Amino acid sequence: MAIPLLQLALDNTSLAEALESTRVLASELDVIEAGTVLCVTAGNQAVKALRALYPDKIIVADIKVADAGALLAKVMIGECGADWMTVICSAPVPTFETALKEAKKYPRGDIQAELFGNWTFEEAAEWKKVGIKQAIYHRGRDAQAAGQTWGQVDIDKIAKLAEMGFEVSVTGGLEVEDLKLFKGIPVKAFIAGRNLRDAADPAAAARAFKDEIRKWWS
Amino acid sequence: MAIPLLQLALDNTSLAEALESTRVLASELDVIEAGTVLCVTAGNQAVKALRALYPDKIIVADIKVADAGALLAKVMIGECGADWMTVICSAPVPTFETALKEAKKYPRGDIQAELFGNWTFEEAAEWKKVGIKQAIYHRGRDAQAAGQTWGQVDIDKIAKLAEMGFEVSVTGGLEVEDLKLFKGIPVKAFIAGRNLRDAADPAAAARAFKDEIRKWWS
Repeated sequence: MAIPLLQLALDNTSLAEALESTRVLASELDVIEAGTVLCVTAGNQAVKALRALYPDKIIVADIKVADAGALLAKVMIGECGADWMTVICSAPVPTFETALKEAKKYPRGDIQAELFGNWTFEEAAEWKKVGIKQAIYHRGRDAQAAGQTWGQVDIDKIAKLAEMGFEVSVTGGLEVEDLKLFKGIPVKAFIAGRNLRDAADPAAAARAFKDEIRKWWS
Repeated sequence: MAIPLLQLALDNTSLAEALESTRVLASELDVIEAGTVLCVTAGNQAVKALRALYPDKIIVADIKVADAGALLAKVMIGECGADWMTVICSAPVPTFETALKEAKKYPRGDIQAELFGNWTFEEAAEWKKVGIKQAIYHRGRDAQAAGQTWGQVDIDKIAKLAEMGFEVSVTGGLEVEDLKLFKGIPVKAFIAGRNLRDAADPAAAARAFKDEIRKWWS
């Protein structure tokens, strides 16, 4: 089983703030994500700056596309240089399909289905049918603040998605001690934001995540 | 029954292009929407510029929030000056609730539920319960390109949402001749993008929409 990647989610409200985090964290990361908050505040400079600074990292434009899939893939992947872009689960299937077709025009381009709310495995099968290979299982920060914790229901859903052939990334207030919950599942990437960024020593926090990942996936 | 508003959706990939449209169209409009494409390319300058240029119009940040509702309402409404912000239907209920609570701190602030894909009336009842009053019924451009047309199913759903007490705006490739389909329903706003922007005479196209609206809602 491949070692899961470590992904930093940047949800800052300015590019400069986001770069304060990447400056100290980038060397420990596999994937750097420009989150929705950063994208709608900094605009396309966010992904462009990350691409310019970190040519060897996977860059994700987490804009949770609901429509205009091809256009946004062209802008975010083709023009700004993202590798992956997220499409929200409630988007129509043609949005997944057209976004993926555009994404695949670029060497590392790919689309990730962002799972929020009441998506179904029937919908997931539809995304699979049009070629989507990646999904992000998400415990939202608002749901989390409202008390939703990681549980067996989440683990079972993630395992089922993996069995369907999805490369599943996992996110939502992940702490180092949560990682072992996902043991045995071929997780694509663990995504952390404030638990890395706001740590007293962010690089040390990232190394703790990586040590824990290697402990359970090697 | 109130006369439905006319809303322009700006889905340009640069602020300058968007402003070419608003320069010729703004005087005919009630609501100006910074669409997702514009927001993720121009960043927070998009809403700020529209607010600065058009103080008397309703400005919408159509960023289809899936998470971090309060933070994004603070940024888009509180800091950038939008009046309304959209939250995607697949967002968790706490996202609607926290976004609305933040939006209501500002004089004209409000949240619109953006309906895409397989949302349910049970979910709509949940949004209602946390105070959401506006919804946007959407035939996405990708679904539209894939052949989905306006039909009785749409009309019935919109009527049911209105009966539930939602102020429903309608969008998705609307042509002037489509408007009469919604006759008898208290539509909040008709939202058009490329059918106004790309018309030979955009202002005349907007006036044709308004004439047709007045014909059926007066």
